[in-house]
This record gives sequence, structure tokens and C-alpha cells, in this order.
Amino acid sequence: MKIIDGGIVAPIGFKATGGHVGLKKQKKDLCLVISDAEAETAGCFTKNIVKAASVLWDMRIVGNNNKTKGFVVNSGNANACTGEKGIEDNYEMAKTFADCLGAKAEDILVCSTGVIGVPLPIDTVKDGIKNLYSGLDKGIESGIAAAEAIMTTDTFIKTISVEISLSGKTVKIGGMAKGSGMIHPNMATMLSFITTDAEISRPMLEKALKDSTVDTYNMISVDGDTSTNDTLLILANGMAENGMIDSENEDYKIFKEALDYVNKKLAIDIARDGEGATKLMEVTVSEAKTKDDARKIVKSVASSSLFKAALFGADANWGRALCAMGYSEADFNPNNVTIVFKSKNETGEFDGIMLMDKSIPIIFDETKAKSILDRKEIYIDIILAEGKESATAWGCDLTYDYVRINGDYRS
Amino acid sequence: MKIIDGGIVAPIGFKATGGHVGLKKQKKDLCLVISDAEAETAGCFTKNIVKAASVLWDMRIVGNNNKTKGFVVNSGNANACTGEKGIEDNYEMAKTFADCLGAKAEDILVCSTGVIGVPLPIDTVKDGIKNLYSGLDKGIESGIAAAEAIMTTDTFIKTISVEISLSGKTVKIGGMAKGSGMIHPNMATMLSFITTDAEISRPMLEKALKDSTVDTYNMISVDGDTSTNDTLLILANGMAENGMIDSENEDYKIFKEALDYVNKKLAIDIARDGEGATKLMEVTVSEAKTKDDARKIVKSVASSSLFKAALFGADANWGRALCAMGYSEADFNPNNVTIVFKSKNETGEFDGIMLMDKSIPIIFDETKAKSILDRKEIYIDIILAEGKESATAWGCDLTYDYVRINGDYRS
Repeated sequence: MKIIDGGIVAPIGFKATGGHVGLKKQKKDLCLVISDAEAETAGCFTKNIVKAASVLWDMRIVGNNNKTKGFVVNSGNANACTGEKGIEDNYEMAKTFADCLGAKAEDILVCSTGVIGVPLPIDTVKDGIKNLYSGLDKGIESGIAAAEAIMTTDTFIKTISVEISLSGKTVKIGGMAKGSGMIHPNMATMLSFITTDAEISRPMLEKALKDSTVDTYNMISVDGDTSTNDTLLILANGMAENGMIDSENEDYKIFKEALDYVNKKLAIDIARDGEGATKLMEVTVSEAKTKDDARKIVKSVASSSLFKAALFGADANWGRALCAMGYSEADFNPNNVTIVFKSKNETGEFDGIMLMDKSIPIIFDETKAKSILDRKEIYIDIILAEGKESATAWGCDLTYDYVRINGDYRS
Repeated sequence: MKIIDGGIVAPIGFKATGGHVGLKKQKKDLCLVISDAEAETAGCFTKNIVKAASVLWDMRIVGNNNKTKGFVVNSGNANACTGEKGIEDNYEMAKTFADCLGAKAEDILVCSTGVIGVPLPIDTVKDGIKNLYSGLDKGIESGIAAAEAIMTTDTFIKTISVEISLSGKTVKIGGMAKGSGMIHPNMATMLSFITTDAEISRPMLEKALKDSTVDTYNMISVDGDTSTNDTLLILANGMAENGMIDSENEDYKIFKEALDYVNKKLAIDIARDGEGATKLMEVTVSEAKTKDDARKIVKSVASSSLFKAALFGADANWGRALCAMGYSEADFNPNNVTIVFKSKNETGEFDGIMLMDKSIPIIFDETKAKSILDRKEIYIDIILAEGKESATAWGCDLTYDYVRINGDYRS
């Protein structure tokens, strides 16, 4: 597997564009993506029972095993809790883009993100689609513009693309995502879009995507809130002509591994760019009795407000980590826990400090602990000495800026 | 039922004291309470599987149906994650107080709160107990001193006492609590102590206490973290001679109602005084299909970081409330929800604003909404129009000060 440039336009046949159409004051707020060939499509959606109009639309298309031609995303308005009018507006978004392509509305997926409960300014969106449409392009810049146009409070674009070889053919996978707030592990707690030119059957595509979320998007948390709009979509247009993947064969495994890489990169970037975050936290549990226990523990630690605030303050408060483990509902022996905090120094090597050794607190050098925790990527290693299973989750610190951003989001 | 002065020393036979013994820099950090007569004792404890030494001790005493003579609380050090030494230190706390009283260690309950994972300075605690012991007193001031001495980051004392008449006798119930951080609904997420001179059997006392937590302590949240030390204790010394309550008779009902009042008052005060909080939030769901659905919804809304931050910013962001309802795992129809935000004006009357009417967003006066949300007690009313059940939860806003306090708690 090779990392390449291009993001979602890296795979053959995908074009994108992004621009400002007037939903936000100045920033890009609308993104269009098309595939030259109809694409097999799979998706994962929010578990929130309050679902935005776009989620209901996409779920129906994906549920019907429809192939699709592309998608349109607005990042100014979630079009959630907007009633019948919201459903109609969402249809208009799809229909307007479809008309530009000479396609049916059902060929187009829709995502929306932004404020909840405010009617979508649909005329602005429709005019925007028509204006942006001519800019659809294959160039790297258009992939970047698209990734910019889906951001809300994100501070950097999240994009990745890789190349693999399947049965002698070059196959590419590209991805882009937006996150920031309302991020909590419960399936696709953000917007994420994956494109690929792989030839792969609908059932295999769906399986690969679903399995890939377990240790990627479902293992990140920013604030414990699961949004009404969370969507993960993958479009596979088959233009790489690698020969149909229709079973869990060797090509499937290579494809899945590359897809995992793409999803993990995007998921970690979402955690790193959590609203107001100054630090990425990677929590790993090893030697757990079961995978489920390991996952519960890392998610609980990465989600603890108290531990996140301690991380912000570079306070080596391992007690809060142990406390969060204790209420995670995982089964483990609290009297045999080892905890190490680590970060990488300037030369890329780990500096670590052991804080608890088989549940005995270690008297540690506070200055060294602080110097480790003052860095931008903090690794929390927890060893249970009970079994062979491990899991990793990602989160961020809880900061003044999280409160500032969310204390007045609508204005 | 009449509200009276005195807190935990209001009931006959209870004496208390609180003072500074050197665990904290200046503030009171040790509290002693005794009962002249041995008291029936019941308790509820943290569900966290990491349990402090004091919790393990108290659980054993309560589990054995032992009567007790009193309790000792330190508020400087949680004595949690401190291994065998912590267990020994906890025993020494009980033993030292028991020796002063000429009692057995097992007659004394222990609570600790403060930093996790640091050995308890047991000599300081022992000297402190011996010094404070002579100050045990019945006066109102000693009840206040005790309530002060259990505080950590609390900003005000939480105390209440009431008087009821049972079979012609006056019976009193007193209570004090501390909360602030690590507060989340999962049984007794704080320290709370109830004293009463009621004559009531151990089984009835336990039932009353347990049933009383469901809609009081279990319905508050500050930050979603369940502590290692949470403890709720009740001591009933029978000195009111009201005749033994040993069934769910009329006296039991009156007693339970008064106990509910006391617990609710303390629970709401804990939510109001959440770390860094500037506002109390009371969330009520009515017309739910089941009690369980109603409880899930109010707890989810009161616990949402995003909604709590919006409340801090006086932002009428009902979308985040609806979103939190949606991921609460409660069963309800998201297309028939009515949401009203209210607060009381200077004359004690409610000002309210409807934000969503049967799931149709209402265009509302932002200035009026802000004036309502700028007050100190905010009421969120949610009507589901699906059934007859209701529930109420309490929480607070998420503020810069929460981050500041918890960013550097240990120093």
C-alpha cells in the first residue's frame, strides 16, 4: 500500500468541487462529488433516533442497494428537525444536482451539517449547486476544495488517499471527513466520504465498510454527543477493472486493510481536531480478557470529561483514568492495573512514565510527567495482565475553547 | 412536614463537629458525627468497580446489618487506589474514632474524598480525630461545621432538616452532602449523610433509602463521571420513640416522603453547585410512554456537554436537547415533541418560551429567550404526548471554570 495525493479525486473517474454559495458568511459551504461510472454504494448512519432529512434519504438509497452517481454536501445547515419542509428541501438538493448531471434524484446522495432546526435556505443551495457544477474537476485542488467545503468548526482538512495492487491492477481509495463537535463512538459520528475505483460487489463493499468502522470511527470521542446527521458513505465505481471482488478472497483482504488505513487516518484526525482540542489522546488497553472489555475501557477513558480536562492541564492524573475504567462496565481486576503515559520527543522516540504498576501507585517525577503531557500527542497505555485482547481509542482534551465554541454556536 | 434548623444534628441524639486538621492547606477537612444510641444503618455505594477503601469498609458493615455509632469523613484525600496500605489506613481512621468513644472499629463508618492514588497521611488524620473529638456537640453551629468539613470544590454547604409527626411523636430527619465534580447518575454519586431519630427496622430503612435514590441522586449529573468513593449513608437511632416502623404502613409513607424531600433537596444542591457551574438546569419530561423512557431522556439532556455549554452561553439551542433525547436510547416519537424553556422572574413567576411545538420549530424572540436563559435556574419542559409518565433530572451548565478547576486539580 502506498500513500498518494488526491484525496477523494485520486481514484479513477471521480471529480469534485467545493465553494462558497452563501450559507456561511465567507467560508466554503457546498461540495459536489461525481463519479463517471455509476458506483456501488454503502453507508453507515447515526444511531440517533432523531435523524436529519439527508440521513433518511441516504438510508433509503443505500437500503435499496441503488447505485449512485455522486453526492452533494452543505456545511451551513443540518436540515434536521425541520419537518416536512426539510424532507422536501433535501429532495430538491438531490434533484438539482441530478438535473445538472442528467440523472435521477435517487442517483444522488445528500449530506448536511450545521445548525439544527433552522429551515434550509433551499434557493441559495439550488443556485449554489448550479453555479458550482461547472467546476467539477479531477485535479488535486478540487479534492482539497471539496474537503474544505464540508468543514464546520474543523480547523484543518481531513483527507487521505492510498493505492494498492489487486490482481495486477492499480486500485485507489480516497477519503475526506469532517468532525469537530458532537463526536462520540456510536457509528459514524461525523461526515466521512470514501471513494474508490475498486470493482467490488455491493455485499462485500457493505461488509468491508461496516467491519472497518468498529476500530476506527466507533473508537473516537470528542464530547459524548451523537449527532442527528452522522453519515459515512463509500462509492466504488469499478473503473480500476481489477476483477469483481465478490468473496472474502485475498483481494478483499488487501482492499479491507487499505480501507481500514484510510478510515483510521480520518477518525484520528477527527479526534485530533475535536472542538477546542489542543491535544490528541490515544488510549490503548492490552492484555484484556475480551475484546469487548478492552473496547469499553479505552472508550470510557477517552470520553471522561475529568480525564480530558486533566490532559488539558498536563496533569498526570492517572486516578481519573482508573476511575473511568472502573465505571466503563468492563470486566477487569482493578487490583492488577499498570498505567503508563507516553509522548514522542523531538526525534520521534517515546518518553514514558509509569504511574501505576500492578495497581500500586508509583511515586513519579512531576516535572518529567508534565514535560510528557505538554506535547500534542499523548499515549495512555493500560495493561491488565488478564488475557490477550487489546483495543485503542482516540480522543482529545477538554479545553476553554470547547466551552467558548459551544457556548454560542448559533451566532 | 416542617423544615427546621440543625441539619444532621437536628434529630435527637446526634452530635457533630468539623475542623481543619492539616489535610488541606486551610479549609476544614475532617468531620465527626456520633449518635448517642446505636443506629440502624443503611447505605448505597458507587457502582464503579474501582472502590475506595472507605467504600469497601462501609459496604461490609452495612452488608452485615451492623448497627453503628457514628462516622468520620476526611475531605482531603480519597484514599482510593492506595492498595493494602489504604485498607489499613481506613481501618485506623475507624479505630481511632472508635477508641475515643469506647466502641469497636466496626461501629464506625468512614468516608474519604479528595485526590485519588495518594497515600493518606494517616498520622495527621489520627491526631485530627483525637483533637476534634472533644468538640462533638449538638448545637446548630456544629452541624454547619460538619457540613463545611466534608466539602471539596463545593462552593456552599448542603444541609437540610425536617420534622414530621409519626404516631403522635415528633420525628426529625437531617442531612448533609457534598458534590461538585465526578457527579453522574449511577447511585450515590457523591457523599451524602442522613441522620434520623426515627424508630425504623433495618429492612424498612434500607428500602426507604434505596427507593428514595431513584428520583433524587440518580437523576443528577455534573460531568458524567462516577467516582470511586460515592457513598450515601443513613443512621436511624430510634430515639424519637415513635414505635417501630416495620412495614409499609402509614408512618412509613410519611417517613419516606420526608426522606425523599431531604434527598431531593441535597441532590438538587449538588447539581446546582457542580464544578464551575453558573446555572441549575431542571429537565422534565412528561407524557412519556414509560417511566424508564422518561428517565432516560431527562438524564441524557441534563448530561449533554453540548447542551450544557449552550446553557452557559444562554443560547436557546433546543436542537441539542432534541439531539440528546434522540441518542438517549429511550423509545419516543421524534415527530411529536414539544419543548419549552422557562425561568422564574423577580416576582417568582415563570417566563417561558416555546421552541418546538409537536416537532415543528417555532420562530421565537431571541432577546426574550436570552433573558430567560440568563437567569440562574433554567427549566426545560419536554412534552411527548405519548403517555402518562414523567421524570425530572437536574444538571448544570458546562463552563470555563469546570475546565479550569479540573485542568489542575492536584496542585
